[in-house]
Amino acid sequence: MVKILEGLRIVEGAAFVAAPLAGMTLAQMGADVIRFDRIRGGLDHERWPVTETGRSLFWAGLNKGKRSIAVDMTTPEGQEIVTRLICAPGPQAGIYLTNLRVRGWMDYDALRQHREDLIMMSVKGDRSGGPQVDYTVNPAIGFPSATGPEGSEEPVGHVLPAWDCITGQQAALGILAAERHRARTGKGQLVEIALKDMALAMLGNLGIIGEVSVNKYDRPKMGNSLYGAYAQDFVCADGARVIIVGLTNRQWDNIQRATDTRAAFEALAQRLNADLDKEGERFKHRAEITKVLKPFFASRSVDAFGTEFDRAGVTWARYRTFMDVVEQDPDCSVENPMFSMLDYPGIGAYLTPGSPIAFSDVERTCPRRAPSLGENTDEILAELGYSDRDVGAFHDAKIVAGPGSE
Amino acid sequence: MVKILEGLRIVEGAAFVAAPLAGMTLAQMGADVIRFDRIRGGLDHERWPVTETGRSLFWAGLNKGKRSIAVDMTTPEGQEIVTRLICAPGPQAGIYLTNLRVRGWMDYDALRQHREDLIMMSVKGDRSGGPQVDYTVNPAIGFPSATGPEGSEEPVGHVLPAWDCITGQQAALGILAAERHRARTGKGQLVEIALKDMALAMLGNLGIIGEVSVNKYDRPKMGNSLYGAYAQDFVCADGARVIIVGLTNRQWDNIQRATDTRAAFEALAQRLNADLDKEGERFKHRAEITKVLKPFFASRSVDAFGTEFDRAGVTWARYRTFMDVVEQDPDCSVENPMFSMLDYPGIGAYLTPGSPIAFSDVERTCPRRAPSLGENTDEILAELGYSDRDVGAFHDAKIVAGPGSE
Repeated sequence: MVKILEGLRIVEGAAFVAAPLAGMTLAQMGADVIRFDRIRGGLDHERWPVTETGRSLFWAGLNKGKRSIAVDMTTPEGQEIVTRLICAPGPQAGIYLTNLRVRGWMDYDALRQHREDLIMMSVKGDRSGGPQVDYTVNPAIGFPSATGPEGSEEPVGHVLPAWDCITGQQAALGILAAERHRARTGKGQLVEIALKDMALAMLGNLGIIGEVSVNKYDRPKMGNSLYGAYAQDFVCADGARVIIVGLTNRQWDNIQRATDTRAAFEALAQRLNADLDKEGERFKHRAEITKVLKPFFASRSVDAFGTEFDRAGVTWARYRTFMDVVEQDPDCSVENPMFSMLDYPGIGAYLTPGSPIAFSDVERTCPRRAPSLGENTDEILAELGYSDRDVGAFHDAKIVAGPGSE
Repeated sequence: MVKILEGLRIVEGAAFVAAPLAGMTLAQMGADVIRFDRIRGGLDHERWPVTETGRSLFWAGLNKGKRSIAVDMTTPEGQEIVTRLICAPGPQAGIYLTNLRVRGWMDYDALRQHREDLIMMSVKGDRSGGPQVDYTVNPAIGFPSATGPEGSEEPVGHVLPAWDCITGQQAALGILAAERHRARTGKGQLVEIALKDMALAMLGNLGIIGEVSVNKYDRPKMGNSLYGAYAQDFVCADGARVIIVGLTNRQWDNIQRATDTRAAFEALAQRLNADLDKEGERFKHRAEITKVLKPFFASRSVDAFGTEFDRAGVTWARYRTFMDVVEQDPDCSVENPMFSMLDYPGIGAYLTPGSPIAFSDVERTCPRRAPSLGENTDEILAELGYSDRDVGAFHDAKIVAGPGSE
């Protein structure tokens, strides 16, 4: 982790990807992020992937570096504990990150009665509060219909919950922006972002809304081509598959040099009466370009050209499965300072990423694992000013729980 | 836009998605973001999608709300202009966002000679500075091999440059974190993020590294299923396609109620000796669940069940193409306060998103279009203290350019 946000305190009541990812991102940057959950765990407590004994590797991944308190929020005492937690004093506290849709005592208006300058970051499905998730937003905004082999009619969903990941990052950004505003003006506020709005905004940002509106063009499936330039995957002699990218002219030059095809492409350009030094022309003639390059890869194993490609600055990569990545890629190992081996109680040790951002003025330290559910219940209650006797009574009445009770 | 960052000033020297998206995101939150480019435009100046006359809708999308200056950086005068721009005084200035790999005068160490507390946010391909892009990072970390129809051997790349989008958001976050640190300590710094590290971190965050390491399981392609729970796409009687999601038990209950299949699923559970109220069991028996639900959709048009699904709180969506989205979805129209119709010189008017985040204490105003290349050259030079005579001489010597000169 990189403690650039040390001192900042965020209380998180959330589940699944976007909001917990926002909290985790800030935790890995040094913020004290306290996640509260029901005593039996939140909706994502058993989310796959899970170990053979049912421990969620997903939960362990998205809650790294946080502290955990488990509270029965159906009780008045539980509601008071969570309210005190969210609205605790301190200039860098009073920030609440949530995607829960609990009405009443957890509303922004109710909570700010307890802290006027509260910042509440609320992540929603759609702008009307509808129950949209990554798996519905993606089909609704068009990507699955444009993904997959040319000519196929089957929509292809993404495996990466990209909208969740993007929205989570933007929610973290929204928190820092609101905290900056509060430090300057003294004012807190309600900050809201909807998963579907984030996706629609990106549709506009990438020029796709413009393309539909101005060009009246509905982009079809194009396999693994790079729209508007050249990229293609090839099968090599050893059965491995690689992708090469010729987006910029430098990349295109490097491909020609490394595959010794400059003369062949000059001949092709002449035959097609095309200027292949223009990215759009490379895209239009991508099938012809691929024909020229195919024999190079079909007759060579990756070992035979990989080193030379790197030396020549070719932008390329080998296709890997998830297991290949973990087993073969040095970037996915402790050789990469972002990664550490961490031991998770009840699971074992495995490679764990810290923050991917490096700050030259803040040392990178080992990431912290996710807490067990309720692991920090007692210390958090003590910080809130509850006495040992109070804490004991809460446990006896099953209003709070420590670790191992789920 | 939402002017929560008003006063903050960022200078951007960048191209393509991740870094320009970071700048655009901050611009739409009110920061003054000045993008500098070569006189003929950066590498992304003609990036697709483009209009029939070659104007880049991509560029227009990723540079909204910025100001533009065009400078010949091969000249000493041009280098001095850009250095003065990056290192201009002011407590909220002195922030440089880049993905350029220019050595020498644009290094962090060279630039900080001109402003000791400079913040430089550098977006790289991989941690070693290799030329990785979204199109190579994605195959390299495994997602294409796990995407697409069950049993298929063909890797499927994503159409959304997801790693760029995620990295861009995190780069914006890194800037705010570093600026917060500078406001507290007076210290600037070099901040770095690599696209591939961001992707590898997410592989860990989502539990996939854990799954490979602990379970020794390499997740295969699973079509449009939701790993570890239930989601499936169906073709309806009118040919439309929808997806339904049964991740949480509430979602699963709503599906059963809205499709009147509770009795059928009780029978199925008994026959399979399975507890379908457990998300993992729903996943394991997804093919059987789909068999039960298929006739419902095959015999109905979307109109026949859509309203009822919404009323029952079903988490579902209709598959759309990009054109469908723009033509049919009210969320993708000026009904949504995030969107405005903006007029782009040389292109025309089309729907443009502002910031997807809403801040209750900061009014949402109309987004600003992207500038033309060099549109703000003269005003920016004046702000840097150059006289009218200097500016005229720079133009005469082709050291700078105004709009329309590319």
